[in-house]
Amino acid sequence: MEFFSKYILSNHKEIAVNFLNSFKNKKSLALFVIGNTETAKIKGISAAGENPNITDYTPAADMEYLQFGKCICIDGVPITPDGIPTPAIITKAALSLSHIPYFVVNSGTNVQPQLPFIHLGDYGGKNISKEIAVGNAEQIYEKAKIFGKMISTTTDNLIIGESIAGGTTTALSVLLSLGYDAYGKVSSSLKKNPLELKKEIIEEGFSSKKIQKGNFKENPIGAIKNMGDPIQAAILGICVGVNSKIPILLAGGTQMVAITALIKAKNPALLEKIAIGTTKWIFEDKTSDICGLMNEIDSNFPIIAINFDFSKMEHIGLQAYETGIVKEGVGAGGITLASLLTCNEKITLENIYEEILKNYNELIK
Amino acid sequence: MEFFSKYILSNHKEIAVNFLNSFKNKKSLALFVIGNTETAKIKGISAAGENPNITDYTPAADMEYLQFGKCICIDGVPITPDGIPTPAIITKAALSLSHIPYFVVNSGTNVQPQLPFIHLGDYGGKNISKEIAVGNAEQIYEKAKIFGKMISTTTDNLIIGESIAGGTTTALSVLLSLGYDAYGKVSSSLKKNPLELKKEIIEEGFSSKKIQKGNFKENPIGAIKNMGDPIQAAILGICVGVNSKIPILLAGGTQMVAITALIKAKNPALLEKIAIGTTKWIFEDKTSDICGLMNEIDSNFPIIAINFDFSKMEHIGLQAYETGIVKEGVGAGGITLASLLTCNEKITLENIYEEILKNYNELIK
Repeated sequence: MEFFSKYILSNHKEIAVNFLNSFKNKKSLALFVIGNTETAKIKGISAAGENPNITDYTPAADMEYLQFGKCICIDGVPITPDGIPTPAIITKAALSLSHIPYFVVNSGTNVQPQLPFIHLGDYGGKNISKEIAVGNAEQIYEKAKIFGKMISTTTDNLIIGESIAGGTTTALSVLLSLGYDAYGKVSSSLKKNPLELKKEIIEEGFSSKKIQKGNFKENPIGAIKNMGDPIQAAILGICVGVNSKIPILLAGGTQMVAITALIKAKNPALLEKIAIGTTKWIFEDKTSDICGLMNEIDSNFPIIAINFDFSKMEHIGLQAYETGIVKEGVGAGGITLASLLTCNEKITLENIYEEILKNYNELIK
Repeated sequence: MEFFSKYILSNHKEIAVNFLNSFKNKKSLALFVIGNTETAKIKGISAAGENPNITDYTPAADMEYLQFGKCICIDGVPITPDGIPTPAIITKAALSLSHIPYFVVNSGTNVQPQLPFIHLGDYGGKNISKEIAVGNAEQIYEKAKIFGKMISTTTDNLIIGESIAGGTTTALSVLLSLGYDAYGKVSSSLKKNPLELKKEIIEEGFSSKKIQKGNFKENPIGAIKNMGDPIQAAILGICVGVNSKIPILLAGGTQMVAITALIKAKNPALLEKIAIGTTKWIFEDKTSDICGLMNEIDSNFPIIAINFDFSKMEHIGLQAYETGIVKEGVGAGGITLASLLTCNEKITLENIYEEILKNYNELIK
């Protein structure tokens, strides 16, 4: 409980503590599910790249950075137009201290990372406002289910992070497709959540495809196919494949809330062995409402946030996280949480801060 | 020891028993490394397909059969021109009784299996007699190393099987490239080993690329790049990545001997935690010499064969294995061995025969 009060913000304290206990001193395995959606290329949607086309490279570059400490598919590392580095620098710090093993899962990207990955799909998703978003959603889901079943036999628990530019927009549109009142509750990687722009894009998609809010209440694959992105099909499939055999920490913000809504539509009982692990910047975000949104889906579901404090970081690029830019991604919050738990508190959040600083100094060299 | 005398044929008994003990009642994980080589399309080389172009489909079809009990990329299942089914029916029987989990590793195929796989390469290898065989050998190897390192943290031991049509020819050419006297010692999936044809193809490749036998003695990646196939780069990389952390059973025949030769050229110490698991049909094959060949590479390396007896099987298609066609593939021998050991003898070879028969009856329905 000392750990809890020191490092954690959460909604349902007792459920959260119980869930965290199931990670203590256990064998963890992380998956990073990457994908692309053309939706990210709409101007003003994503903080993941100044040039919209660069969003194709962001997930591959994030994975290469995690693996090699540098990117192969781009020069430098993924960084916002304001010079704020990818949250992968947090993830990398936590992984390197905890030695949690991980695999990259490619649900469908336009640029492949130059490293081994689990292949679930061949290409990125389309622009939700204009086209069928994920034509191969069913195939990705079925492959992910097989993979989830296999991987569940190799570890005591699973942490699933993501990297997809534009993913909060597709999270919002999938939540609406499933019938949830999600407008204003889904976060953004931008400091100023482009709520109106997102609404416009989604309404255009609904109207061009003759879909009404809630049409896919009982058809989660249909919601993804029409209005989602490839990572949603992959993470849903993995969770269904794991089939409650081991606990799963969904490492992400409101994008992962969309995943819980999809899981609920498939098999609500699965939610009992799942939690969301995220960051303070999502948990306390004024431009979204992760707990309110989650409440609509499941009123007992734990959202557990690491109480990061970057205000004393010695670089402006890191301090900037406190202003609400980026907030989360590449499983930063959940991986940090799992790293602290897996190592049975042999590493502290302060150790992770030091490692983040080291990573940042390497980057700006 | 009773298990040993009942089920096993091997060269170095004591070393073999010690190795097998490290699998008893432990958590096993299998990998099936698939790939293509255009070399398989040379008429008379492979038993894996009547129509040479079908060899592109064989590995994908094998993996689909293992997963679904039927193939998606072809009608029916991989079968020789004489109607002898793929050895995957043995592998599937053993896996379904032992519940050993597995992953498919795609080192480079021309046809993708419709299931999740670990992606290491985008395309199959070329014809060794005419072209650079595996232009991306180094990249496959490096990715496989990363994957091997990760996967070694998730299991107590690893079994690595393969499926690649034409693989005995590329095994032979790689052994020669490394300087071993391999002519006449490498097996074939055909009843009559096409020794002269293989020699012709390889000599043509050597002469067109101005290579002499032994040129790549200290350059295993060069041997694969010039005269090998993609699965060799992948399996070598995985073994180097595992780095002796867990024991590895190479499940295959003389193709796996070529892998040990490649490993020796990279890091001979790694061979101490590796063995070959195969079938009686390879171990006793009169058209090849697995033990003699292995002796040239490492005089203490255990080759452990399951003493299969299909002579009393009630179908001619299965009895035919006793005549020396197919012999091995898709890890049939090693997976059977590991299945018996992992389950601590709760399943017997007789149980596996019954399951093989069941699989065969399903096939011919």
